[in-house]
Amino acid sequence: MKQRLEQLVNWMKSEEVPVSMITSKANVFYLSKFYTDPHERLVALFVFADHEPFLIAPNMEKEQVKAAGWEYEIIGYSDTDNPWALVKEAVEKRTQDLSKLALEKEHVIYERVEKINEAFKSPKLVSVEDKLNELRLIKDEQEIALLREAGKLADYGVEVGVHAIKEGKTELEILATIEYELKKKGILEMSFSTMVLTGEKTAAPHGKPGLTMLRRGDLILFDLGVVYKGYCSDITRTVALGEINDQQREIYETVLRAEVAALSICKPGEQIGNIDKTARSIITTKGYGDYFTHRIGHGLGINVHEYPSMTHTNTRSLKPGMTFTIEPGIYLPGVGGVRIEDDVLITENGYETFTSYPKDLQIL
Amino acid sequence: MKQRLEQLVNWMKSEEVPVSMITSKANVFYLSKFYTDPHERLVALFVFADHEPFLIAPNMEKEQVKAAGWEYEIIGYSDTDNPWALVKEAVEKRTQDLSKLALEKEHVIYERVEKINEAFKSPKLVSVEDKLNELRLIKDEQEIALLREAGKLADYGVEVGVHAIKEGKTELEILATIEYELKKKGILEMSFSTMVLTGEKTAAPHGKPGLTMLRRGDLILFDLGVVYKGYCSDITRTVALGEINDQQREIYETVLRAEVAALSICKPGEQIGNIDKTARSIITTKGYGDYFTHRIGHGLGINVHEYPSMTHTNTRSLKPGMTFTIEPGIYLPGVGGVRIEDDVLITENGYETFTSYPKDLQIL
Repeated sequence: MKQRLEQLVNWMKSEEVPVSMITSKANVFYLSKFYTDPHERLVALFVFADHEPFLIAPNMEKEQVKAAGWEYEIIGYSDTDNPWALVKEAVEKRTQDLSKLALEKEHVIYERVEKINEAFKSPKLVSVEDKLNELRLIKDEQEIALLREAGKLADYGVEVGVHAIKEGKTELEILATIEYELKKKGILEMSFSTMVLTGEKTAAPHGKPGLTMLRRGDLILFDLGVVYKGYCSDITRTVALGEINDQQREIYETVLRAEVAALSICKPGEQIGNIDKTARSIITTKGYGDYFTHRIGHGLGINVHEYPSMTHTNTRSLKPGMTFTIEPGIYLPGVGGVRIEDDVLITENGYETFTSYPKDLQIL
Repeated sequence: MKQRLEQLVNWMKSEEVPVSMITSKANVFYLSKFYTDPHERLVALFVFADHEPFLIAPNMEKEQVKAAGWEYEIIGYSDTDNPWALVKEAVEKRTQDLSKLALEKEHVIYERVEKINEAFKSPKLVSVEDKLNELRLIKDEQEIALLREAGKLADYGVEVGVHAIKEGKTELEILATIEYELKKKGILEMSFSTMVLTGEKTAAPHGKPGLTMLRRGDLILFDLGVVYKGYCSDITRTVALGEINDQQREIYETVLRAEVAALSICKPGEQIGNIDKTARSIITTKGYGDYFTHRIGHGLGINVHEYPSMTHTNTRSLKPGMTFTIEPGIYLPGVGGVRIEDDVLITENGYETFTSYPKDLQIL
């Protein structure tokens, strides 16, 4: 935690930013270990180039901030206090230099910018997001351990889902069974809305589960993940209920080959764009290029979508400690869709996957 | 839908606002019937004082916008388009007057304000939220029908939870059973994180369910709601597992009396503050005033928390079509907590509740 704050402070010094305000759940957690979703109430971390940071939170959360390990000042406020007056006082006690303030432009709501402008006479506002995304790009040992556990729980979710498959059950029944079993293991939050799609609906990469029943000859697609101690997993598997036709089988085998090929080149130094290109060329060669309609994957950590963005145009190199998904798919209207997704860590010499549910075509 | 847009346009004319930009899920839905959660992608509704509105959304959502019943222009964009260039073009085709722009200051992120400032040379920004909150305050027949159904499903959730209670089960097991059964009925989304709390944990109004086991002599508190076709419910019931002690019983009876008394004065013309005061005075008379630590309730509709705010200081009058919760509680550290909550509609002559699960103390 201290090291993360130091890295941010070093950046602030080099950019001549005297103050940063951090308000997103993910970045507050990353820098303070305090995990909260305060909704409309203000929780903010103020970091200074030359002074100690402070964290402001509702009074009822003060104890949790301390318990999380935050060692600096905590300012609490009640529902009748004006938290911005307390912020102004605490900031001005530390510094008079408010010419520039860094904040999360892609997160902070405009009303809060107005409060900042009132309190500090409209400082020049710069983005702190790029720097924080950069810091979060390389995971440390502790983060990797949590991501590994989150991956195991995602595997378990798919296992439960596959066991629950039965002709005539609905997508939502299968989905409910998966989340039921994960809750019993103590999982309070999925990392995104669980997807269980059948038949035609598998051909929509963003389809919504509903009361559609499972039928023989259907492909069934699971896409799910959990939040484990603040870290996310994200797995996709596609299985078949009864015999599927040749084209469905071809799609499956093509996606699987693409996924395995993309994984196989994962190592430090490899250009990120090549991961997408490797998978895409296999799919394109088979004639399905137009039906692989999204990037190969996305970074994974505190947020289920973070950096690096795994597009074919990303020219950066993979480095040890990067974590991301690899998830090629083919979505063929009228036939169905297949996606296979694993969570990947770049190691010193290659890669490790956090998810390991079997990928060979399962016909149930 | 048309009527809602007209009301907004009338306000814009009277306030001399040529353009409004609406981007929150709730307000886009309220004005267009299009319900979506586009995450970081731009979905925005532009409304003009003197021209036809348009809605901009990712290409893949265009069909759904039409299906929702939107009759005006829909501008689609792909992942490689710059949606702000399309917005600029569409706005300037309609009007050159961009001196003022209304937006949701409590919702829109700062980065989007920067885009607006770039595209339209920093118009004066005013808030459209107060007006929209005002419009949404009075529900129409169709909205009431959906809220009524959402309330029934909340009742069902509590019923499932109560049936699932058994010594030794964990809070999360009960919670999982409730959500399982609701999903089987087609409910894809709860209106907030379901709460099942036992024993000591009932004394925390914002406690988190976990692996705590149910024991005899415990109070068990359920707080849950569903999203049904875009509308929310929110119910709380507290029951006992086995015999409870006299103080727990006294708390229960006091909260119940307070809730019933608050309900009984609900009718058009009654001052909102009196709802809170009526319940609070009963709780205070019994000596528990310090342990009823929150307002009596909140408005309910597309959002699970909206206007009116049911505080003791709210001097506005109730009107037919207002919908809100009534939820007094007593949280006594070391003893436990009780909250009882119903969803209420103000009718022409009095009130109706959307939730009707029994409220007499149940000892299981």
